[in-house]
Amino acid sequence: MVTTDLSPAAQIYIPFLYIIWADGLLTASELSVIRSVISDDPHLRGQEKTILLDWLHPGQPPAETQFEEWKQLIELQNASISLEEEFPLASFSSRFLPEKTSSSLNIQGLEKIEYNLGIQPNQYKHLFTVDIPERITESSFSEQRMSKVLKGKYATTIKKVQVLTENELFDWTITKDKTFHRQKVSAQLQEVGKHGLGAVSYSPDYGGKSDLQAYGHIFEQLMFVDGSLAVKFGVQFGLFGGSVFSLGTKKHHDKWLNKLGQGKLLGCFAMTEERHGSNVRGLKTTATYIKENDTIEINTPSSRDYKVYIGNALEAKMATVFAQLIVNGTNEGVHAIVVPIRDESHNLLPGIKVEDNGYKHGLNGVDNGKIWFDSVQVPVDHLLDQFGHIKDGKYSSNIKNPDKRFFTTLGTLAGGRICVGKGANAAAKLALTIAIKYALKRRQFGSEIHKSETAIIDYPTHQMRLFPRLAKTYAIHFALEDAMSEYSALGIHDDKRKLETQIAALKSIATWHANQTVQECREACGGKGYMSENRIPDLKSDIDIFTTFEGDNYVLLQLAAKGVLSEFQTDFNAEHFTGVIKFLRRKWSDLLVSYNPIFTSNIDLSHLYSRSFHMDAFSYRRRRLTFSIAQRINNLFKKRVKPYQAFLKVQTHMINLAKAYGEELILISMHKVISETEDEDVKFMLKKLSALYALSTILEHKGWYLEQGYISAKKSKAIRQLVHRHAQQLVPDVNALVNAFGIPGKYINLPIMS
Amino acid sequence: MVTTDLSPAAQIYIPFLYIIWADGLLTASELSVIRSVISDDPHLRGQEKTILLDWLHPGQPPAETQFEEWKQLIELQNASISLEEEFPLASFSSRFLPEKTSSSLNIQGLEKIEYNLGIQPNQYKHLFTVDIPERITESSFSEQRMSKVLKGKYATTIKKVQVLTENELFDWTITKDKTFHRQKVSAQLQEVGKHGLGAVSYSPDYGGKSDLQAYGHIFEQLMFVDGSLAVKFGVQFGLFGGSVFSLGTKKHHDKWLNKLGQGKLLGCFAMTEERHGSNVRGLKTTATYIKENDTIEINTPSSRDYKVYIGNALEAKMATVFAQLIVNGTNEGVHAIVVPIRDESHNLLPGIKVEDNGYKHGLNGVDNGKIWFDSVQVPVDHLLDQFGHIKDGKYSSNIKNPDKRFFTTLGTLAGGRICVGKGANAAAKLALTIAIKYALKRRQFGSEIHKSETAIIDYPTHQMRLFPRLAKTYAIHFALEDAMSEYSALGIHDDKRKLETQIAALKSIATWHANQTVQECREACGGKGYMSENRIPDLKSDIDIFTTFEGDNYVLLQLAAKGVLSEFQTDFNAEHFTGVIKFLRRKWSDLLVSYNPIFTSNIDLSHLYSRSFHMDAFSYRRRRLTFSIAQRINNLFKKRVKPYQAFLKVQTHMINLAKAYGEELILISMHKVISETEDEDVKFMLKKLSALYALSTILEHKGWYLEQGYISAKKSKAIRQLVHRHAQQLVPDVNALVNAFGIPGKYINLPIMS
Repeated sequence: MVTTDLSPAAQIYIPFLYIIWADGLLTASELSVIRSVISDDPHLRGQEKTILLDWLHPGQPPAETQFEEWKQLIELQNASISLEEEFPLASFSSRFLPEKTSSSLNIQGLEKIEYNLGIQPNQYKHLFTVDIPERITESSFSEQRMSKVLKGKYATTIKKVQVLTENELFDWTITKDKTFHRQKVSAQLQEVGKHGLGAVSYSPDYGGKSDLQAYGHIFEQLMFVDGSLAVKFGVQFGLFGGSVFSLGTKKHHDKWLNKLGQGKLLGCFAMTEERHGSNVRGLKTTATYIKENDTIEINTPSSRDYKVYIGNALEAKMATVFAQLIVNGTNEGVHAIVVPIRDESHNLLPGIKVEDNGYKHGLNGVDNGKIWFDSVQVPVDHLLDQFGHIKDGKYSSNIKNPDKRFFTTLGTLAGGRICVGKGANAAAKLALTIAIKYALKRRQFGSEIHKSETAIIDYPTHQMRLFPRLAKTYAIHFALEDAMSEYSALGIHDDKRKLETQIAALKSIATWHANQTVQECREACGGKGYMSENRIPDLKSDIDIFTTFEGDNYVLLQLAAKGVLSEFQTDFNAEHFTGVIKFLRRKWSDLLVSYNPIFTSNIDLSHLYSRSFHMDAFSYRRRRLTFSIAQRINNLFKKRVKPYQAFLKVQTHMINLAKAYGEELILISMHKVISETEDEDVKFMLKKLSALYALSTILEHKGWYLEQGYISAKKSKAIRQLVHRHAQQLVPDVNALVNAFGIPGKYINLPIMS
Repeated sequence: MVTTDLSPAAQIYIPFLYIIWADGLLTASELSVIRSVISDDPHLRGQEKTILLDWLHPGQPPAETQFEEWKQLIELQNASISLEEEFPLASFSSRFLPEKTSSSLNIQGLEKIEYNLGIQPNQYKHLFTVDIPERITESSFSEQRMSKVLKGKYATTIKKVQVLTENELFDWTITKDKTFHRQKVSAQLQEVGKHGLGAVSYSPDYGGKSDLQAYGHIFEQLMFVDGSLAVKFGVQFGLFGGSVFSLGTKKHHDKWLNKLGQGKLLGCFAMTEERHGSNVRGLKTTATYIKENDTIEINTPSSRDYKVYIGNALEAKMATVFAQLIVNGTNEGVHAIVVPIRDESHNLLPGIKVEDNGYKHGLNGVDNGKIWFDSVQVPVDHLLDQFGHIKDGKYSSNIKNPDKRFFTTLGTLAGGRICVGKGANAAAKLALTIAIKYALKRRQFGSEIHKSETAIIDYPTHQMRLFPRLAKTYAIHFALEDAMSEYSALGIHDDKRKLETQIAALKSIATWHANQTVQECREACGGKGYMSENRIPDLKSDIDIFTTFEGDNYVLLQLAAKGVLSEFQTDFNAEHFTGVIKFLRRKWSDLLVSYNPIFTSNIDLSHLYSRSFHMDAFSYRRRRLTFSIAQRINNLFKKRVKPYQAFLKVQTHMINLAKAYGEELILISMHKVISETEDEDVKFMLKKLSALYALSTILEHKGWYLEQGYISAKKSKAIRQLVHRHAQQLVPDVNALVNAFGIPGKYINLPIMS
């Protein structure tokens, strides 16, 4: 019998027969399901039942010609499968009937087969035309208004940078050769300087706007252009220029600030030495005052104590050199001196040696080098003397305590640390934008003709890989803005100990977060993420060092933990533990903290979503870690363990404390921006992001919370489920969320997007 | 009074006075400690007490001349401080006395000051000469014997590679230009092929030794030379050569295997397509049999369905092309066909188009490209016909079931997946060798003259960053060797479903472990880790893609989870879930697993260290995750959720199951090698590594174990402490442990080591 002679009631089984035999893995029990449905179908004519059942003998696949006939029948219907329906295949088959009189068809029987055999799109997508359901892409909020919240009062500044970088000089290209890359970045820097973007943090007398926060936004925007440009910008205007501005006085400003702020006088910041990466106080370079000719002589004491990784070293005309200042035989501690290193023709001056540091993992557009000084003399007024000066051959300082002087000097660098965090977060934004837009477009196992069912954004694994990171990127953005705003408001002599502690924690969290996020985005983009043309490789390589420079994260977190432990009573950069110990011995038992046992097992949705629960959990963690370190240290004291050894024993504990402190700060900023936001839709979305950040962070530490008894196992599981659900619900909004980052189109129109 | 006139009993206070005032942060309470010690000192003459107390008036620092005198006195003693002593400064001062009659000195008073003020090396290291204690470097075991265990029976093979790579052609250098890099790697590959190293996995008739495990060791050794060389080696001999060897038959072997095994005939492995990264079954390229001239015609159906990321694409003369084989109008599924793509003069043959894939994040010594085919005809005997052939114009196969045929074809690729794991682990070994040797040498805050107290290897944070990873690297090594040994023992027609599952889990764990380890090593080396000259950057970039190629880790882990769930009854590469569902519906309630509540709170050391506890914890996790997925899926069935949707809901759960399965396999291999090792010292060290791997993995999942009630909070804390202690105890052995990896000196004598 020819298939087309079958009645519609029988024809509806054909797609099933076709798929079942094409799949070729029928078992006897599966066959029995189908056979019983057919046997029980009241709409089939007697003969048709026999025919259909004949096609379902195990071990007797139908002839090829039969297959061909089935296929033709199916194609004749010109129907397509919609995956939006609960039983796509049964619905597809039901459409075979010219008149929609489904009462004469055994649709429920088909559904039974589809369900019991677990037939799913993967098994028929190559055989039939499958419609892809339209994705809901309309977001629940206005991305423009979200963008406005992110920009704060810096929309104009950002616009200015974006207008400038429209110039093709700022196009992103793959560059592997460092000479070429440096030339390109150098030309970009000149352009940035010429447009006054470098000087914004200086006072108006020198072309600036006294606006460090604006400087931070410019830094972030330049990250989108090229990590090398942002870092070179930071070296020239933030480190070199910033040292002249903050550590120098009017005579220095008048002499150099205008020129350097326009990028006409390039300089470097020569602090780090080969054997003193993290210990500025132990620098070996000397700056000896010579009374006879009122000069300062700079020396690299041994060939191994050179300055290293100094950005701009190959292009700079000058360097701010950090050295032990020795006046009349007394070491007055580390001071900064401006030292010319090249003449107008770019020849090195006598006594100066510079070597290229060579290729780095990333940032090869920045010319890092090593510098040696041999009896290099500069006039005494090259000493940047904001905090200590030499007059009539004698050293004096407004800050009598040399430690305080040293710490105040270092405190001027904390602004740069915020920029490093912002730069890292910018990389996270860019990578997330690429990976999320790609995931919205990409269908795994997909093809053009037989379209598949699921875009990879719909995979729970993919959502969990990207969305909590997206939420955290938002939260970090606001925390860094808050820190920058507070930092900008302080004068150079103001106490910065608390803020330095906060910045250290935020910088560490932001840079690690960015590295992990960019890596996750690389993997989430598969092979395309590995192609240089899609930028993720460069982002990865560029920001890798952000965890190390401007303070190694582990060193910074230990300093931050000391700050937290002593309630910011100790100097931030102090290496010793005395102050902390004194504080803890006096106070530790006051630190005891408890939690409300009623909440331990509360899994009400309203509770789990509430900001008060999130804040309580974060704050409890920080306070509990503080208490337990204090307790451990005091126990060690009782055993007469030496302070240094005692702190070594709690080192990993301290790292956890500092992270917990930073995570809490980030949540505080997120809550702050929620309370300040007026647009209801944007506010609601920020609440969602805040909850996702908070709950996924609690989940990350669930082992600790369970150990403490702060949450029960039941609650821990409830939070896990909630995070999954929450991430899933974010799908319609993620495109708008990455658009709100406002990254210029030219930097994301990459081959991966086509 | 002049300081030198003081009696020894008084002089011993001078170093303290000097440090106290130099530190400059004395509080009244601190002063009172010192003053009371001095007041109570019975050895001081009356006048001396007054003098000493006079020097301790708060707010009245001594005159500079006084400081100078103190310094001279200290220097006169020519003593040095040993940090090995409990109170270094008190001991140092006690040595001021010519005769060692400590009874006449108030040493206990000095100790009291040193303790109460928390004076520590950071406060005096710039002032005095400080001796660095000799580090215990003698390991507890023979590194040669450990090396022997790692090499197994492949010492000769490894030696052969190492002798060859002594040649300067195999020197590692920084290469950024891909043209140059490719040329270099190409020359290296020729040399490797010439020495017969490429053919070892083929049969002796074709220059081989039928030894796939030896091939794996060669692959690993080549990773030390350059990631690009290892990957190009894998493409030529493993993928291209392996496809001819495993999927072809004698006629193909006779024709090509000798030449390609020597590297004289270069080929590529054209499987991946632009829109089918992970779905081989859905490839679009067609291979149509043309009866008229008994040829097969290869076509790229649309311009977007090209082959992509194909290694060797720019150098190859031939390609193994995977395509849908269509014979007489029937699609017989994916088959492999050998297609010449260039002539002897290296011109592309008609119908072939090749494009360079361009720069990648790493592996730029490998020429990856895109390939298009337009009506390219090859003789029918170019079909690799191990599993399906065309004779007299008709297709036939020994494997009647097309699915089984397809899965058997893919099963021949699993060996390459083990090599990817081995290559990744080799990178972890190299990075750990660099980072650990650097940490042993490097002293944070150290300098040459005033030596500091702590090498960074002594920091608990540093130990926790590196040592658990070192242990896991060892464990992964043994697991991959076991997998390779089992895999090699199987014939091409043997059931590989279980082993494919295991390999998928191991490959994913090994490649992620390597990426995280290399990153941690980069950060642990600070700025030096970022310099290309120290190799870590290239290692990072090269192995990044290992998580994606030869199977994306997320895809592999889902396949592995399906294997575990169905107890390996389903085909490894099957996309659908039917088989798993059938299995689970029948069996899920049998999977229920419980644990012994007696162990929940057992924190006896012998229990925590016992292999039986470790194995029970790992196995419990795998079994419990299996049960809970089965339970969830069955619940979803009851709610009539469709199978595909049901599996989507448990996707992250499945990823966790597959990881848990792999972690258990790794532990099993580690326990196996312990039981097989005879040398007692080596065995003891392997036990330590095994415990560190096991306990740190349990710690990583402590949240889950606590949720399940498998361990108590007390036990969780005990394990954390144990891991810390265990890591610390490993310090004297880590140098020997990395030496035992046996990486040739020329590949680790990097600038960072000097």
